[in-house]
Amino acid sequence: MFEAKLASASTFKKVLEAIRELLTDATWDCRESGIALQAMDSSHVALVALKLRAEGFDEYRCDRSISLGLNLTNMSKIVKTAANDDSLVLRAKEDDDTLALIFQSPNEDRYCQYEIKLMDLDAEHLGIPDTEYDCVVSMPSSEFSRIVRDLGQIGESLSITCTKSGIIFSSKGDLGTGSITLRQTTNMDDEEDNKGVSINMTSPCCVTFASKYLNNFAKASPLSNSVQLSLSSDVPIVVEYKIEDLGYIRFYLAPKIDDDTEMKTEG
Amino acid sequence: MFEAKLASASTFKKVLEAIRELLTDATWDCRESGIALQAMDSSHVALVALKLRAEGFDEYRCDRSISLGLNLTNMSKIVKTAANDDSLVLRAKEDDDTLALIFQSPNEDRYCQYEIKLMDLDAEHLGIPDTEYDCVVSMPSSEFSRIVRDLGQIGESLSITCTKSGIIFSSKGDLGTGSITLRQTTNMDDEEDNKGVSINMTSPCCVTFASKYLNNFAKASPLSNSVQLSLSSDVPIVVEYKIEDLGYIRFYLAPKIDDDTEMKTEG
Amino acid sequence: MFEAKLASASTFKKVLEAIRELLTDATWDCRESGIALQAMDSSHVALVALKLRAEGFDEYRCDRSISLGLNLTNMSKIVKTAANDDSLVLRAKEDDDTLALIFQSPNEDRYCQYEIKLMDLDAEHLGIPDTEYDCVVSMPSSEFSRIVRDLGQIGESLSITCTKSGIIFSSKGDLGTGSITLRQTTNMDDEEDNKGVSINMTSPCCVTFASKYLNNFAKASPLSNSVQLSLSSDVPIVVEYKIEDLGYIRFYLAPKIDDDTEMKTEG
Repeated sequence: MFEAKLASASTFKKVLEAIRELLTDATWDCRESGIALQAMDSSHVALVALKLRAEGFDEYRCDRSISLGLNLTNMSKIVKTAANDDSLVLRAKEDDDTLALIFQSPNEDRYCQYEIKLMDLDAEHLGIPDTEYDCVVSMPSSEFSRIVRDLGQIGESLSITCTKSGIIFSSKGDLGTGSITLRQTTNMDDEEDNKGVSINMTSPCCVTFASKYLNNFAKASPLSNSVQLSLSSDVPIVVEYKIEDLGYIRFYLAPKIDDDTEMKTEG
Repeated sequence: MFEAKLASASTFKKVLEAIRELLTDATWDCRESGIALQAMDSSHVALVALKLRAEGFDEYRCDRSISLGLNLTNMSKIVKTAANDDSLVLRAKEDDDTLALIFQSPNEDRYCQYEIKLMDLDAEHLGIPDTEYDCVVSMPSSEFSRIVRDLGQIGESLSITCTKSGIIFSSKGDLGTGSITLRQTTNMDDEEDNKGVSINMTSPCCVTFASKYLNNFAKASPLSNSVQLSLSSDVPIVVEYKIEDLGYIRFYLAPKIDDDTEMKTEG
Repeated sequence: MFEAKLASASTFKKVLEAIRELLTDATWDCRESGIALQAMDSSHVALVALKLRAEGFDEYRCDRSISLGLNLTNMSKIVKTAANDDSLVLRAKEDDDTLALIFQSPNEDRYCQYEIKLMDLDAEHLGIPDTEYDCVVSMPSSEFSRIVRDLGQIGESLSITCTKSGIIFSSKGDLGTGSITLRQTTNMDDEEDNKGVSINMTSPCCVTFASKYLNNFAKASPLSNSVQLSLSSDVPIVVEYKIEDLGYIRFYLAPKIDDDTEMKTEG
C-alpha cells in the first residue's frame, strides 16, 4: 500500500503544471523516503528531476517501493479539477493497475475519487554527476519567467553571461538584438527573502541555450518566489525551484555549441 | 401590438446565453399570460422549455397572441451589446416582419434600437407529461456546473446515483474513472438559501446521460444560485433553473440505455 | 544623434497598440520639433497621422533630422515587454542601421536594450488639406469604441448622422438593422472633463464608412478619455485622439459612396 496526503492540493497542482508540457509520460518512484520522478523530455534534450520528501506530506505511508507509470496529460486534467483548498490523497495498492486520486472539500461535503490507469514505461534512470558550478545565481522566479519570454521573441537562442556585477541575458534574431541586465542586489539582507538577485561566482561564464526549453522550465514559477541557476561553460545548466516543505524540481539543459556558426547557416 | 419591458437587460442576456448553444432557431410564443419557448435542440435529443410570466415584466402588453420565429445566434449577438443596467424593450407589431429590441441607458443619454428579421419556423409543440419523480435534488448551480465539466473530461457518459445520504456523479473512459459524491446538507435551515444540497426521495435511482448535454444545460447557471434535478429510472431528467420573479428554464434529456454494453462496443 | 526619453513607457506602448494593426511598416520622421509619422494603411484606404512634440518628452535631442523606417509588428513586440513604469529611451545614431530601445526599471536594477533593424521605406508624404467641417463631435472614447464594435456585428457599413440634438450611428445587414443615438450632454460644464457628448455644427450631415476601419481606429482609445470626430458630407472623417502632453494621433477615412446601391448589389 502506498498512500500520501497533502492538506492542500494547490502545491501538487503546480507541480503537474510545471512538468506536463515537457513530459507526456513519466514514472513516479514511490519509496519510504518520498516520491522521485526523473525523465527526459520527449525530444530527449532536457532532463526533469522532481523530489517530494515523505516528511513534507501530512500523511505518508509506503509499505513497499512501487513505480507508477502515468500519463501526465491525463493526470494533469484530473488534478486541475481539485480546488486549491481541497485535501489531496494519492493511493496505490500493490497488484492494482490504477492510481487513486482523492480530493475532499474542507467541510467534507464533497468527495471526489478518480482512478487513473497505470502504464508500463521503460525505466531510464540517469546518473546526474555532482558538479561544482562556476556561477550560482538566485533571482525572483517571476523575473526569470519574464526574461525568457521576452527574449524568446527575439531569437531561438538565449545567452546567459554572468559576472560579479550582474547577469546578462541576450538574444539575437531576424528583427535585431535584445539584452537584459540584472544587477546584483546590493543589500544582502534581502537575500533570505528571495526577492533579490544574488550571484555566487568562482569565475565568470557565458553559455547559450535553446529559449524554448527555458520557457518551459519557467512554468514552474508558481512553485517558488525564487529560482536558482547553476552555470558553467560547456556544462548543462541546472534551473531549480524549491517546493516549500516538500523538496524541489530541477531542470537540466545542455548548452548549444558553436551558436554563432549555427546562426549563420540558419540565416 | 406586443411589447414587454424589463428595467434591467441583465436577466434576458443570461436567458439567451443559456439556450443559444442548444438552439439555433426557436419560436417565442407571446401571449397575454407571458412568453413561452419550447424547442428540441438541433440534434433532437434535448428539449428546452422556457417560461417568462407577464407579471414579472416591468411593463407587458400583448393585444393578440403572436409567434416570433427568431435566429438565436443573431438575437444573442444583439442582446449581448446591452449593458447590464440598460433597460430592455421587446416590441413586435402585427403584420410586421421584425422584432425590435430597444436598450436605453439609465440616464437616457443613449438609445439603441435593433430590428431583427423574423423567420418562418415549423411549430413543434410537444406535450410534456406530468411525472412523479423518484428523486428531486436541489443543489448549488455552480457545483452542478463544475461537476459536469470535470467528469465530462473523463468520459462521454455521466451516471447520477441518488440515495438518502447523498448524490453520486460518476464517469469512466479511456484514462480511468471518476466519481464525485455530495452529502445532503444536514442543517436544513439552509435549504431556503439555496446554498446546500437537499434530496427528496421516494426510492433510490441511478440513471446515465450524455455529458455534453448536461454541460450545455449548465450554461444557465448565471440565472440562479441553485438548480433542481428531477430523476426517475428510464425517464428523462429535468434540469430546472428558476428565473427570479419571471419564471423558469427547464431542460429535458432522455437517459442513455444499456450504457455498459455501448461502452464495451466503443472500446 | 537622436535620443528621446519618456519617464514612463506606458504612453508609447499605447501609441504602438493604436497603429500596429493598420500599419505594418512606417517611417518615423524625427526632427528638432518632435517625431511625426504619416502613412496609409496596407490597403491604402485609411491614413494615420501621429505627432509627438519634442517638449512633451522628458529628454529630447535631435542633432539632425533623421527618418527611421521600422517594422511596427517587431517594434510592438519589443515595446510590449516594457513594464508601464519602466523609463523608455529611443536612440538612433547617424550612419547606424538600427534603432535602440532602452527600458529601465524605476530602481535601475533592470536594464533592457533592444536594437531593431531599420528598413528602407518609400517616403510618401501626403498633404492633408485644411478643411472646415460641418460637424465636430466630441464623445467618450470608450463609447465610440463600443458603438463601432456593436454595430460592426450588424453590417459592413456604418452611417453617422449628426444633428443639433444628437448623433446617430446606424448599420444594416442580413440579420436586420441597428441604430444607436447619443444625445448631446445638456450640462455643458462637463464638456471640459471630456466625459460628455458635445456637438459643434454648422449644418447637419450624414456620411457612411466601412465599419472595420473605424473599429481599428478605436484601438487608440486607451490614449485618451475622449475622441473627436470631424465630419462633412463627401469628405474623409477625421478621428482624433489627443495624447496627453505629447501630441495626437489622427485617422482619416474616405466615406463610402452610394452605399444603398452597393448594398442592393451585395444582397
